[in-house]
Amino acid sequence: MSTSPTMAELRPGTGLVRLLDACWRRQADATPVWYMRQAGSVLPGYRALRERYSVLEIAKTPELCAAVSLMPVREFGVDGAVMFADIMLPLERMGLRIELLQTGPAIDNPVRSADDVARLRVIEPEEDVPFVLEAIRMVKRELDGEQAVIGFAGGPFTLACYMIEGGPSREFGRAKGLMYREPEAWSLLMEKVTATVTGYLLAQVDAGADVIQLFDSWVGALNPDDYARYAQPYVRSIFAALEGTGVPTIHFGTSAATLLESLRDAGGDVISVDARLPLDEAWARIGHDCGIQGNLDGARLLAGWEATEAGARDVLDRAAGRPGHIFNLGHGMLPDSDPDLLRRLAAYVHKTTNGVSSG
Amino acid sequence: MSTSPTMAELRPGTGLVRLLDACWRRQADATPVWYMRQAGSVLPGYRALRERYSVLEIAKTPELCAAVSLMPVREFGVDGAVMFADIMLPLERMGLRIELLQTGPAIDNPVRSADDVARLRVIEPEEDVPFVLEAIRMVKRELDGEQAVIGFAGGPFTLACYMIEGGPSREFGRAKGLMYREPEAWSLLMEKVTATVTGYLLAQVDAGADVIQLFDSWVGALNPDDYARYAQPYVRSIFAALEGTGVPTIHFGTSAATLLESLRDAGGDVISVDARLPLDEAWARIGHDCGIQGNLDGARLLAGWEATEAGARDVLDRAAGRPGHIFNLGHGMLPDSDPDLLRRLAAYVHKTTNGVSSG
Repeated sequence: MSTSPTMAELRPGTGLVRLLDACWRRQADATPVWYMRQAGSVLPGYRALRERYSVLEIAKTPELCAAVSLMPVREFGVDGAVMFADIMLPLERMGLRIELLQTGPAIDNPVRSADDVARLRVIEPEEDVPFVLEAIRMVKRELDGEQAVIGFAGGPFTLACYMIEGGPSREFGRAKGLMYREPEAWSLLMEKVTATVTGYLLAQVDAGADVIQLFDSWVGALNPDDYARYAQPYVRSIFAALEGTGVPTIHFGTSAATLLESLRDAGGDVISVDARLPLDEAWARIGHDCGIQGNLDGARLLAGWEATEAGARDVLDRAAGRPGHIFNLGHGMLPDSDPDLLRRLAAYVHKTTNGVSSG
Repeated sequence: MSTSPTMAELRPGTGLVRLLDACWRRQADATPVWYMRQAGSVLPGYRALRERYSVLEIAKTPELCAAVSLMPVREFGVDGAVMFADIMLPLERMGLRIELLQTGPAIDNPVRSADDVARLRVIEPEEDVPFVLEAIRMVKRELDGEQAVIGFAGGPFTLACYMIEGGPSREFGRAKGLMYREPEAWSLLMEKVTATVTGYLLAQVDAGADVIQLFDSWVGALNPDDYARYAQPYVRSIFAALEGTGVPTIHFGTSAATLLESLRDAGGDVISVDARLPLDEAWARIGHDCGIQGNLDGARLLAGWEATEAGARDVLDRAAGRPGHIFNLGHGMLPDSDPDLLRRLAAYVHKTTNGVSSG
């Protein structure tokens, strides 16, 4: 049973209602804002914890995970707490030995053959990743309806890329090589990943997530035909499963300018676009019957307030006060971002859009 | 003075004429083909040399560089020899200490401030990189008008990214951070890089390059407004300088689906597109008064002949025999590509397109 807030618990003027309003394309009191990768690296409180614990230790200890997830809500004044976790987390229990290195995830036993795929298991969230669900319950209680709890998972193509490459890659040659060479093994892999992701996300909703984001970060490596054949059916099945929950969904990709319409067709109440596309052009292509999230270039937060404000103003101008916009970065926050700027930016977005289109 | 072949030296039926015909959008006897990053990694002859010499030693020794550049012409049957070099090569003499690692170039003294930019010098090709020019002369003599000599350089934005990041990056946060924060330092950096690239390419033409490609690989990280402001003027100036030479130019970017029209407007007789875009759609956007290069997904060469042929057929179908198509991969060849497939692919492209549209 879902423990999402009932209508009675939704209090106007909260970040939670602001974010849900945008997801449902209702006029919000201001444009909601949160930052991808907000929980972690840039916060002094997180850095202090990291001196004693590894990333995985924090993610797997509900008290620590909840504390880190809550930090940016207080520090930056954003409208939602995205759970501190890594998209690789559920893959460990599928049977992969994963290390999170400075350069990204490294897998000791990557998936390279049909046999490797056959050995993978589909996870049982309550048994395999109980810590994520417990952390969601804690964050939910702590926020008490003031801000949204944002749950997430990696998209199936993106996860498959990591599982096959086993380390950093720019081209995903091995992953696409297997996809082209052994379409049956690819299908089975995608089915298992999809079953894992679907169960994982439904369990997060059940634990209290108010919004769900699917990070299909690397789909931009596919052309439209390949996306339609090798990725889209699985994404569609995940969003279809979430539809029944009543919890709104955000669908994220990067370098996906050629796939915008395909992403929208695969599902999601909101499409999250990166900074490569002007927000108004992207929204026109997606259609205004769909929400949009984004898309400030995170590099502006390395360049001082003037550059940050100019970029934010441009994004908000392009959104033009139309209901359905969630302000965010185009991609995850960069490690050297200045916390003060992030705080100032959230306040700027709220102030600038407060009552903009309600008159 | 240019030593490019005069009209009298152009012999019909050669790879050189085939490639030049496509660059000028004249009906060629077959679709010309070459592979980005063809000189190097996958060839046994190259691997043998690498046991004795570093990449930079090979690139800086004209005899070795010429030998490696010529290998794929014989091994794969392609229509041009692209020079074995690294886009970082001219940067060393601008004042950077560069190492070419497995993970990519690493710079010991990256550019991080206006002072760093001020210290950079513009290179004098004949004095600073004579080995590249000598290697071009040797390859030119050896090919004797049978295949084209393809010279190249990195694009100014791409080189600036490497110079500022100093190591692998996916987002180019530091580079864009400096660009947004210190537009004057950025301009000066781009002017110096542009002067270096322009001189370097003109010297390559002078030494005998038949075709020039500008690899602006990372421009796709910019949105159209930022490209127009921070990169395009410099690219335009490079192509303008090359126009007077009579040597055709190819303009390459990746993940640049939002920038296709901007790339075309910046210059180049041929625009090289990556595998994210269907070739026919890309060509329609660029305009058929411009040539197109590409765009087989290199991952297909890791997946056997069937997957390779299906991909190649699709690319050729989309080109539809229209004059002005150079067959290539969407991006550089992947390290584990099978040399046999590369040979078979070049023959397939020639055979399939021989006389296709001439009847």
